[in-house]
Amino acid sequence: MTGLKNDRLLRALRRQPVDVTPVWVMRQAGRYLPEYRSTREKCGSFMSLCQNPQAACEVTLQPLERFDLDAAILFSDILTIPDAMGLGLYFVEGEGPRFRKVVSTPGDIEALPVVNTLKDLTYVTDAVRVIRRELNGRVPLIGFAGSPWTLATYIIEGGPSREFAQTKALVYDQPEVLALLLEKLTASVIDYLNAQIAAGVQAVQIFDTWGGVLSASAYLKFSLAYMQRIVSALNTGPDGDPVPVILFTKGGGTWLEQMAESGCHALGLDWSQDIAQARRRVGDRVALQGNLDPAVLRSSPRVIAEEVDLILERFGSGSGHVFNLGHGITPDIAPDNVAALVDAVHTQSVKYH
Amino acid sequence: MTGLKNDRLLRALRRQPVDVTPVWVMRQAGRYLPEYRSTREKCGSFMSLCQNPQAACEVTLQPLERFDLDAAILFSDILTIPDAMGLGLYFVEGEGPRFRKVVSTPGDIEALPVVNTLKDLTYVTDAVRVIRRELNGRVPLIGFAGSPWTLATYIIEGGPSREFAQTKALVYDQPEVLALLLEKLTASVIDYLNAQIAAGVQAVQIFDTWGGVLSASAYLKFSLAYMQRIVSALNTGPDGDPVPVILFTKGGGTWLEQMAESGCHALGLDWSQDIAQARRRVGDRVALQGNLDPAVLRSSPRVIAEEVDLILERFGSGSGHVFNLGHGITPDIAPDNVAALVDAVHTQSVKYH
Repeated sequence: MTGLKNDRLLRALRRQPVDVTPVWVMRQAGRYLPEYRSTREKCGSFMSLCQNPQAACEVTLQPLERFDLDAAILFSDILTIPDAMGLGLYFVEGEGPRFRKVVSTPGDIEALPVVNTLKDLTYVTDAVRVIRRELNGRVPLIGFAGSPWTLATYIIEGGPSREFAQTKALVYDQPEVLALLLEKLTASVIDYLNAQIAAGVQAVQIFDTWGGVLSASAYLKFSLAYMQRIVSALNTGPDGDPVPVILFTKGGGTWLEQMAESGCHALGLDWSQDIAQARRRVGDRVALQGNLDPAVLRSSPRVIAEEVDLILERFGSGSGHVFNLGHGITPDIAPDNVAALVDAVHTQSVKYH
Repeated sequence: MTGLKNDRLLRALRRQPVDVTPVWVMRQAGRYLPEYRSTREKCGSFMSLCQNPQAACEVTLQPLERFDLDAAILFSDILTIPDAMGLGLYFVEGEGPRFRKVVSTPGDIEALPVVNTLKDLTYVTDAVRVIRRELNGRVPLIGFAGSPWTLATYIIEGGPSREFAQTKALVYDQPEVLALLLEKLTASVIDYLNAQIAAGVQAVQIFDTWGGVLSASAYLKFSLAYMQRIVSALNTGPDGDPVPVILFTKGGGTWLEQMAESGCHALGLDWSQDIAQARRRVGDRVALQGNLDPAVLRSSPRVIAEEVDLILERFGSGSGHVFNLGHGITPDIAPDNVAALVDAVHTQSVKYH
């Protein structure tokens, strides 16, 4: 399989036998690592780090130097797409992302271009190539994008939100205007992920961070339907095999059956879900990824091992499980606790394989 | 049934036949009503309003004067219990509740008293009696309390939180310390709800606003187990019948089966859940309450009627449905849209009964 020395992740995503449960950590290249903070400081801003393929490669590999992780994930941000649409992404310390350009009228949405990755986001595909070269087959590289709905919330609200009042106003009062934006984002994400695949990513994850704020019917119509179109439009990898796709809707626990019908290979679970129940519900249609509460990493190696065991035991025997957190790791975590997590997953999962 | 002119709510909670689906609105006595803002202004602070039985009665009845609601809910706050424990509750405009006293050590928790409602919270039971007298059997009066877990998060974090880092540190590192706090809160909530029942509330709701931030296993252990004890310790009403209990865990959609086994009469659903799927999962064990996205109320009467119809149709024929929002109404809603909601529920639900 493309000469990988460690192909556990791809095998688990395809529900093929593995020796131990593979593990990676959402936001594993991040602020909890002093070496990350150092590289980021050298680059100036978060966006300068994303836009510098050598630096992006450096931080992508940093967690692999420390921990026995089974995957690397491209260092980037889901908001590269709105940035490439010309919205002027920047970050306010402690407050998160903002855009220089406001998108508030139907005309603003009509004026937005579809992203052409090879023209507008070459720093991403360049980073993929550099990282693949540096990884040299050690573990697979995961690419990613935000879901169209999640990207739309940032664009319409102009940054993070709690109530998503303006985006929901479009859901209920101007669904055709929202659909136009979601169409452009869907075309952009397809182009973006196919460019990442062509450049060398070996699996992709779609982050639907805010799908869970919708009602069940609105979720199916305004988030899942577009993710489904993305899944079915992705190209195969250079070996001709489909590239595994992980769908992760935070707060999407009651919609797993419908998500599993999307054609994706795996579902990411947040930590509120019992993985045993989730496995019963999706059957053998998809693999499952998750789902430790990131808060457990603030505890001790002993408690981390216990909580890892609980999830491994709830998933049970057989392949189709990729261990991960239920959401991104927070900046306050001690790196040694991540080592304890990775070690616990590998040693304690042997008996289930 | 205790001489009620409108007993739809109690009948639906007991899954007995009704003519139309009953409806009430979480936080129906609240800031979206100009008459509420006026009463509150007269009282000075939010807590002065809660602590004045006449004023609490006045705002409890205000929404019933405007809308054809099928229930009144006691005007109060879930944090009356920590306040009565001596923590000094106050509200910071735009930031929510705060406590004057910090609870951070096991010793702080040991020092907390169990609430004696008839001594510490007579303003609540007084308000219940005044409201019952003024309601004069028009609709039933709902009492309520926060869940022990939810109250514990406010006490430990000192106010609202996003990550609940300190409370989760207790979950994973000092579960016995957390258990001590939850025991005291459980005893307090039992005393409080039984005092409300003795004073005249005809149904109760337990608000587990933050149960959904826990992992599945932690939820069962640190939230549901205590709510279950509360449910089984509640006294019957003056007629000797059990007082219906509604459990509402926001974000609890994947745990409905376990919640339905708690002995409660109904589950409150947030808006992320498909009520048809929820009904299939809980069968005829409990009634369901919910679950319109509060954001729909920012839209037009036409859209409100459509979204109401969708939920009524998804629930389907038969009793056991109490219409409500999936969370509290927000202050920016036009009162006329609440009228449209209530009207839509009553007129459109006829065909399902």
